[in-house]
Amino acid sequence: MQKPLMQRGKFITFEGSEGCGKSTQIKRFVSTLESRGIEVIQTREPGGTVVGEKIRHLLQFDPEAADLTDESELLLFAASRAQLVRRVIEPSLVAGNWVVADRFLDSTAVYQGVARGLDLEAVKAINGFAVGSTMPDLTILLDLDVTIGHARAVAASEGKQDRMEDQPIRFFELVRKGYLDLAIAEPERIAVIDASKSIEEVTAEIDAIFHSRLGEIGT
Amino acid sequence: MQKPLMQRGKFITFEGSEGCGKSTQIKRFVSTLESRGIEVIQTREPGGTVVGEKIRHLLQFDPEAADLTDESELLLFAASRAQLVRRVIEPSLVAGNWVVADRFLDSTAVYQGVARGLDLEAVKAINGFAVGSTMPDLTILLDLDVTIGHARAVAASEGKQDRMEDQPIRFFELVRKGYLDLAIAEPERIAVIDASKSIEEVTAEIDAIFHSRLGEIGT
Repeated sequence: MQKPLMQRGKFITFEGSEGCGKSTQIKRFVSTLESRGIEVIQTREPGGTVVGEKIRHLLQFDPEAADLTDESELLLFAASRAQLVRRVIEPSLVAGNWVVADRFLDSTAVYQGVARGLDLEAVKAINGFAVGSTMPDLTILLDLDVTIGHARAVAASEGKQDRMEDQPIRFFELVRKGYLDLAIAEPERIAVIDASKSIEEVTAEIDAIFHSRLGEIGT
Repeated sequence: MQKPLMQRGKFITFEGSEGCGKSTQIKRFVSTLESRGIEVIQTREPGGTVVGEKIRHLLQFDPEAADLTDESELLLFAASRAQLVRRVIEPSLVAGNWVVADRFLDSTAVYQGVARGLDLEAVKAINGFAVGSTMPDLTILLDLDVTIGHARAVAASEGKQDRMEDQPIRFFELVRKGYLDLAIAEPERIAVIDASKSIEEVTAEIDAIFHSRLGEIGT
């Protein structure tokens, strides 16, 4: 018998605002995939490479970066992503592994583009340059009322807030609307899930979407 | 008598490949301006801000960044520039000071765009996003035969070569041609000077261009 040709892995991204339960759901989702015998590579943004982790530190925790401009912030996110795509995500997919990403280009479109009011055409061009042809097969958007999400995030951070959590509520309302507009524009790729439900209910919904959209794999 | 309104300063950039004598000529040019009573702010790229200097280190000297992709490199340069423009260059010009920059957006267009073969339209969009409306009033391009320039740069670096100087000669030929093409496209902004002449001759040519193009200032 001939060995079958290596099938390209699937690329799944999770998106959503602070406190939406992304980390918890990614963990559960990855367990489900692994229980089906799928090799999963997990990534986070910014970060995931040596260069990317340095950028992550600069963006989130460096007190000297407090005066970072919106434009520079966006370009640093894009630089981290360009590195991650070419050094981790694309090689993993080619090797037949699946990649599950905690944030990807939609975060930049929404957080920097929509919420900060930057030129959306320029943001699109920069995003496209950073990711090349490596687009997610499926994006899970965990949608949540902004007030609930912010309260959850602040409670979870135990006083160690980063630059994002210092933003006013209005910022997160723009983020939420930005995400939902993206989902309307790209319904084939982006699935919206109500993240106000219980952890188990959200997991069940993600599993259902997984079955209906990518269910032919690993079953 | 009413105090005259503050006149916006002039923004002058120096460009050219390795070994073209940029640093020497910038020093002499700044002295000339200062002797006319002009306040001059000098910048270098990447760098010039706290965030920018961290990016500079990452780009030029960090051994862990050896696998930096071309796309990530370009975006890091752009991030450094976006910060420099908004925190240093633009405020200085508004305050009436002059700014003399060692490299600006033409370096990215040429080194990353042309020489590395990246999508030139995307590079243009990223450059435009990074600098906004802050464009140089005058760009001095020090043009030099690639072999001479490379030999000068290697001699000057005393063995401490950075990532750029490790490139093959062909790379610098593309850089030179990229610069000259830009000068043809934007003759009003970019003045080409033959950098193979003596230091004194090059300085005299820069002074002559300064007089003919911006001579009404400071005389």
